Amino acid sequence: MMNEFDLIDHAFRQKLSFKHSLTSLSLGDDASVHAVPAGYELAVSTDMAIAGVHWPHDFPLQDAACRAVNAALSDLAAMGAEACWIWCCAALKDGAAAELMGEGVAAALSGSGIELAGGDTVHAAENSLSVTVAGIVPKGEAMRRDTARVGDDVWLCGGLGFAALGLRRWQLGEHKASAIKAFRDVKPRLGQGMDLRKAGVRCCIDVSDGLLADAGHLAGASGVGMEIELSRIPSYAELAQQLDSETASSLVLAGGEDYALVCTAPDSLRDALSSIAVRIGHCVEGSRVRALLDGVEMHPPQRGFDHFA
Amino acid sequence: MMNEFDLIDHAFRQKLSFKHSLTSLSLGDDASVHAVPAGYELAVSTDMAIAGVHWPHDFPLQDAACRAVNAALSDLAAMGAEACWIWCCAALKDGAAAELMGEGVAAALSGSGIELAGGDTVHAAENSLSVTVAGIVPKGEAMRRDTARVGDDVWLCGGLGFAALGLRRWQLGEHKASAIKAFRDVKPRLGQGMDLRKAGVRCCIDVSDGLLADAGHLAGASGVGMEIELSRIPSYAELAQQLDSETASSLVLAGGEDYALVCTAPDSLRDALSSIAVRIGHCVEGSRVRALLDGVEMHPPQRGFDHFA
Repeated sequence: MMNEFDLIDHAFRQKLSFKHSLTSLSLGDDASVHAVPAGYELAVSTDMAIAGVHWPHDFPLQDAACRAVNAALSDLAAMGAEACWIWCCAALKDGAAAELMGEGVAAALSGSGIELAGGDTVHAAENSLSVTVAGIVPKGEAMRRDTARVGDDVWLCGGLGFAALGLRRWQLGEHKASAIKAFRDVKPRLGQGMDLRKAGVRCCIDVSDGLLADAGHLAGASGVGMEIELSRIPSYAELAQQLDSETASSLVLAGGEDYALVCTAPDSLRDALSSIAVRIGHCVEGSRVRALLDGVEMHPPQRGFDHFA
Repeated sequence: MMNEFDLIDHAFRQKLSFKHSLTSLSLGDDASVHAVPAGYELAVSTDMAIAGVHWPHDFPLQDAACRAVNAALSDLAAMGAEACWIWCCAALKDGAAAELMGEGVAAALSGSGIELAGGDTVHAAENSLSVTVAGIVPKGEAMRRDTARVGDDVWLCGGLGFAALGLRRWQLGEHKASAIKAFRDVKPRLGQGMDLRKAGVRCCIDVSDGLLADAGHLAGASGVGMEIELSRIPSYAELAQQLDSETASSLVLAGGEDYALVCTAPDSLRDALSSIAVRIGHCVEGSRVRALLDGVEMHPPQRGFDHFA
């Protein structure tokens, strides 16, 4: 059986030789070493994904690892950061799992300009992948959760509900690639995150738990309420054509894992943002996030995704 | 039962409110944001520790978490970096495990000037902790593995063998604090790492797998051989008084997890280093790391610690 160092080499290093131009020391030392250019700050986030919690046990491991990396990178998109590096801790049941996880990590990073700068592998009873991501953002320009103001518009970049629908189909045994693509292929919206930041947006979150849950995190951190109009969300109309309207609204408002971006901005940015995002609501006094359908408040569907609930 | 966000708050955030002066945005957003001062580079490392692999199942979880954080920080010591931040991914069997892990992380960071800047918690069948650590190091001065040269002295900072002895005692049922202290209380040698770097050392590794294994990593990366004289290692004499000499040499040469630092330096640094470290050998032509006792080559004991072997 391969030993720990061989596993890292075979499954990760050989597939992942890209080195970022800001890196001065990479994989294979006690730590990696990187420059952060003058005028920039470092943005860092970490996420853990585990078999049976973040993906079904029968889901292909390479796709699960690819998703985990992309989901972690989505946090940098939400900051408006330029992603540069990731570090992976992989808990692996066996050498085959190491190969598949390595393939998935390589697939996520392929052509992205993002470097695998370090990692650790451990033999474990269950497969899991912890991913730390880092990027750079111009000083003072990171998009945060606590900067929404009453009167701001609420904007959405990306579809909602498709990933949850794909996962539901998988769980019902419908494993065709086209049926589950939205769950399998997470796309971190790094380019759009940077576009929003460059347009002047300073408040953003990515939708991992579901729109109402994550808009609630943003509203809570900023001390505002929100009104969101479901009919303005393009994916609602699309899903309501295939499904009953209650299922469609539940998927759009509470389905997680699409990694769309939700941001707020004053109305002075409407022209700049109209080519990047869709305006779906506005910030109000209070602390509640209310979903409306054609102006009428909807009963809240099941709220976000909570591993401990 | 507490939900995911409450767990993070209760177990981690409330105990860990310290914010580093270089941090502009901390726990609670999609990513944390940090400055890296001009003239400095960023050093980053990640490590995973899991119950049953890195600590015995019956070992107190708060001590295991504290060890895991300190072991990860040791990688920054080996670079000569100033540790600033950590990010933790905790897989937790239940809320009680979250409390204990939070206590352990808090104990490791207490008074250190190091910030918990982010994290993720997941409900899992087994407790584990993935720790990413980051610090700053003056540009071009990071201590690496690939810069040892033939003729360099080999130096040691810290004891060897005591942690492996403590673990062995624990496994034999001897759980008295004094007997297992060296295993339980990992001390990352951050101050000594910076002292070595300031003295001009540019080649260093921390001993996590065992002296021969880690000296071998350093020798391999640098393309040199090494001769290490056991009688120059202070902990060998100490252990040989308590145990037979074969066990003592095995613990010193192959016992892992002490997190001593091993570095190499030209003899021009002997005066500067003599107050920080102990000179235990020298680099030679070739690729083998040989252990000598009073100049006579020893049969190699069991080599380092390998989770997949």
